[in-house]
Amino acid sequence: MTDRAPEDLVRQLAFLNEADRLKSVERATTLNDGSRQENSGEHSWHVALYAMVLDGQAEPDVRLDRVIKMLLLHDLVEIDAGDNPIHAPTSDPAQQALAEKTAADRIFGLLPEAQAIEFRALWNEFEAAESPDARFAKAMDRVQPLQTNLALDGKLWEMHGVTEEQIRRRVGNPISKGARTLWDHLSAKLATHFAVKS
Amino acid sequence: MTDRAPEDLVRQLAFLNEADRLKSVERATTLNDGSRQENSGEHSWHVALYAMVLDGQAEPDVRLDRVIKMLLLHDLVEIDAGDNPIHAPTSDPAQQALAEKTAADRIFGLLPEAQAIEFRALWNEFEAAESPDARFAKAMDRVQPLQTNLALDGKLWEMHGVTEEQIRRRVGNPISKGARTLWDHLSAKLATHFAVKS
Ligand SMILES: [Ca+2]
Repeated sequence: MTDRAPEDLVRQLAFLNEADRLKSVERATTLNDGSRQENSGEHSWHVALYAMVLDGQAEPDVRLDRVIKMLLLHDLVEIDAGDNPIHAPTSDPAQQALAEKTAADRIFGLLPEAQAIEFRALWNEFEAAESPDARFAKAMDRVQPLQTNLALDGKLWEMHGVTEEQIRRRVGNPISKGARTLWDHLSAKLATHFAVKS
Repeated sequence: MTDRAPEDLVRQLAFLNEADRLKSVERATTLNDGSRQENSGEHSWHVALYAMVLDGQAEPDVRLDRVIKMLLLHDLVEIDAGDNPIHAPTSDPAQQALAEKTAADRIFGLLPEAQAIEFRALWNEFEAAESPDARFAKAMDRVQPLQTNLALDGKLWEMHGVTEEQIRRRVGNPISKGARTLWDHLSAKLATHFAVKS
């Protein structure tokens, strides 16, 4: 980007002001100490840090800079469409997908055109979860709340009546697709957790 | 990083759990809507997004991926040392600097050694504010709360009795050092703000 034209800058600053609202979107998960719900702004920071720290767990062709950009953007649609909790998903996935696409049109549309196209493409790639970069980004997005649940000794899972099998399907699958060795480690932790609980 | 050894992974996950505490560090600034204090975790996300969006305002030799990494890490020391508000700084800067260095030793020291050295070097570079990457990162760290203050029509400045001259020195200087054209734009906005107020 080499856009120093004032009109582009005005649009960029308006987008950044709008993004501030992501700090008011509450997630189903709490902080690791259980003190309050996590919001999607601080979650986005944390998963980007996860990617930076766990880069060595990614497949060799993964480009960390693209992964981090995806993670910084991935939840912005929630400003309009709200959070869709993995263990209590909406009853109408098609409606949710439409709401998120409409949100992406509006929110990325605040940016100068070239940048809107670039960011929207990154978000589409993340959502599709097919490219190596997107698969690693999705894995990070799932590992972070798993860590919170383990830190809270499964309190949130119990509260939502979530089983080990559901966690393996909803959380384990996307993690293993993007970070195989990391999932082997976490899978063992999960097995221990539920062995102790049962 | 190609560290797949379990002992490295255990340390990395411990570091990421510790980082969660940054979401409980309150800053002097609020959200743009004034509804509550901002925390340093969501602030770190927002300034990384600022860098990604305003990349075109950086000098040509600035490497965005390094800037974003610096911004993801820049406030972690606040977990131990607390936030040091720009308009109400500590009365003992040497003591604050020591507290932050001690915090950096402890927090980055949770990581595997090679990564601890890499992250600490990025943090040191940010703090020194001399390299082109660090100057742009520092500019982003100052632009974001300036935007919040402008969104709130100067309410926080009034509350803390901050003058236009103080803002130009404490906020304008670091912004102009890292993003000259951006500062020209914001400087004009600031002048208008205070012309209307006076
Ligand atoms: Ca800061």
